[in-house]
Amino acid sequence: VAPRRITLLTDFGTADGYVGAMKGVIAAIAPAALIDDISHEIVAGDIAAAAWCLGMYWREYPRGSVHVCVVDPGVGGARRALAAELDGRLFVAPDNGVLTRALAAVRELRIVEISSDNLLRPQRSATFHGRDVFAPAAAHLASGIPLGRFGNAVEDPISLTLPEARVIGDAISGEVVHSDRFGNLITNIPGNLVTGESRIILEWAPTQRVATGATYSDVAVGEVLGLTGSAGFLEIAVRDGNASQRLGAGRGARVHIDAVGRGTRTP
Amino acid sequence: VAPRRITLLTDFGTADGYVGAMKGVIAAIAPAALIDDISHEIVAGDIAAAAWCLGMYWREYPRGSVHVCVVDPGVGGARRALAAELDGRLFVAPDNGVLTRALAAVRELRIVEISSDNLLRPQRSATFHGRDVFAPAAAHLASGIPLGRFGNAVEDPISLTLPEARVIGDAISGEVVHSDRFGNLITNIPGNLVTGESRIILEWAPTQRVATGATYSDVAVGEVLGLTGSAGFLEIAVRDGNASQRLGAGRGARVHIDAVGRGTRTP
Amino acid sequence: VAPRRITLLTDFGTADGYVGAMKGVIAAIAPAALIDDISHEIVAGDIAAAAWCLGMYWREYPRGSVHVCVVDPGVGGARRALAAELDGRLFVAPDNGVLTRALAAVRELRIVEISSDNLLRPQRSATFHGRDVFAPAAAHLASGIPLGRFGNAVEDPISLTLPEARVIGDAISGEVVHSDRFGNLITNIPGNLVTGESRIILEWAPTQRVATGATYSDVAVGEVLGLTGSAGFLEIAVRDGNASQRLGAGRGARVHIDAVGRGTRTP
Repeated sequence: VAPRRITLLTDFGTADGYVGAMKGVIAAIAPAALIDDISHEIVAGDIAAAAWCLGMYWREYPRGSVHVCVVDPGVGGARRALAAELDGRLFVAPDNGVLTRALAAVRELRIVEISSDNLLRPQRSATFHGRDVFAPAAAHLASGIPLGRFGNAVEDPISLTLPEARVIGDAISGEVVHSDRFGNLITNIPGNLVTGESRIILEWAPTQRVATGATYSDVAVGEVLGLTGSAGFLEIAVRDGNASQRLGAGRGARVHIDAVGRGTRTP
Repeated sequence: VAPRRITLLTDFGTADGYVGAMKGVIAAIAPAALIDDISHEIVAGDIAAAAWCLGMYWREYPRGSVHVCVVDPGVGGARRALAAELDGRLFVAPDNGVLTRALAAVRELRIVEISSDNLLRPQRSATFHGRDVFAPAAAHLASGIPLGRFGNAVEDPISLTLPEARVIGDAISGEVVHSDRFGNLITNIPGNLVTGESRIILEWAPTQRVATGATYSDVAVGEVLGLTGSAGFLEIAVRDGNASQRLGAGRGARVHIDAVGRGTRTP
Repeated sequence: VAPRRITLLTDFGTADGYVGAMKGVIAAIAPAALIDDISHEIVAGDIAAAAWCLGMYWREYPRGSVHVCVVDPGVGGARRALAAELDGRLFVAPDNGVLTRALAAVRELRIVEISSDNLLRPQRSATFHGRDVFAPAAAHLASGIPLGRFGNAVEDPISLTLPEARVIGDAISGEVVHSDRFGNLITNIPGNLVTGESRIILEWAPTQRVATGATYSDVAVGEVLGLTGSAGFLEIAVRDGNASQRLGAGRGARVHIDAVGRGTRTP
């Protein structure tokens, strides 16, 4: 039997020892667990960015994996601590929307509020539930403690409102939902709606020519293009460059498409 | 039996392959060891920051874990290389004070100087003892080689002088000892000495109002507060903000409290 | 039998979930594999920096380890995906030169083009072969699938041209090939050619005095020195300082030595 994997996603950075403390707590409870860092470089308190990041990997992991997500500006306040099972993967996270994209994608889910004192650190700080609540809960989940033991069912987890692209006749209107390390501007417009005949209009730079392509190498170095990214959505990119910097845009910037691809189309 | 864990704390960054080389050396000697990154983003040569970080996690790990700490500006010079056992956890580190906070907290300790050539890399560079000394020593420790085999006992490890808060009558005077990623200014003032009746005075910004609270959510967004942090000490924070940037302060900045909490108090 | 180790080197950063997706794919195929992060902070698209980094660690790992290198600006285009066995270590990487320094150092090598569809993700994006090609290939290699199963042999992998130091009579002329996190300027001049009698001339700062030393502590704090670094080459460093910033130089800056060490020498 392979050991369970526990993944860690936080906005803690690493230099203060907070992530180290979480790993130590896990190691003490579940000594054989494999701990995979996902990121500790989420912008402090950016729940939407954490939700995006989590959406990229949670289902790549096999069933039984435990995903820890601690981007938690409300720590110590009234927000609940959640443990969840979504399509067979286990999660611990504050109830602040960080699970939004995972929740939006699943068929089977169970969520409980983490409240069983004997599964947590005996003395809990007001500022560091990563160490005191989420790490021990994750380690106990990885050790096989059933979800129901952690607390009562939660029916109304908090979800972020995710902007959706709107199709209006022959056009589609969406926005940038994530800007990645390469400066790629990832929109909420399904990539399969954009064809070589589509025109991509950047609302904040309407005169900018944006080529369409299947891959970065379809355009010259430095050229702006729209292509379908790895999550299936339209991305605005610059070949061998940084579209976010070059075009001065980020999350929330609006993008429009006309001549949406639908098989046949009247010019 | 669960495999041993080896934790890594350095100021190497990751992009130059130095940490990779250390991990490879460990993998070659102790192939089943689990390697947990703590941080490679300590500010170059900042021994005090490394000591703080180490203090946050070393005892969370179970006995038998091996903690590697390589913040080592004196590499290649006369400073000794240490292997230690502190309350059952094992350490390898340069003798430069990086173990100060761990040493200050333990009851049982044994320290030796790493000098047994056959437990180290045959050829050692003058600049990279992380790879040539500390990684092989850690891997051998994790493999069960006893501490005494590494060299002779050390009775006088170097310790940093840690500033301590001073209580003077009804007041207490301390300083910021660490500024974390969120900009929280962590002082050396025990949090239980500060009550709702205490007044917190920032020496560098004496007119700044600082609320007292039990948790961030006790104040409005953007407000400055003092609360007890996860290590039990007073922290100066800004709710959903960065106190270090907002208040223009960091390590060494002085903080004073009057009306120290002592149960009863004459106004 | 110890589980196989898979190392990851990318320019993805961590905050977008791309590395998380790769780890999840690996965990699903090879659940017991140990995943060691090397770096995700290579400058975006900097193949030479990735090749340098890889050169520092690949052979420290034991035979059978799998090294994943995804710095891949040509993703989705015509560049091949490679799987290789170099002196017993396994590699997956784009065919863009990232393996140059490893290839230059080996005696036994086998390289194939990854093309066997049933060992890859069924649907492959045009932008993220880390997840769709390299992670599954690495996991299958770690699971014992033989190299030949991945595709046909490659005889002509792309290699970067590595600048070599030139010896001219009594002098040697080289250049900085890597600047590390500490600002150390690592040249391509073999360290054993520089002696205490050598004069080190920085072409971009010819009046700068550069001491020679065996270790940082041979000079005063803040002084510039040349010493042999951990890879055996001359490094220009500042004790307890940053030579790259202080001297305003980086990769490609030229360095000259006269009075090359050769045992005996006429003054």
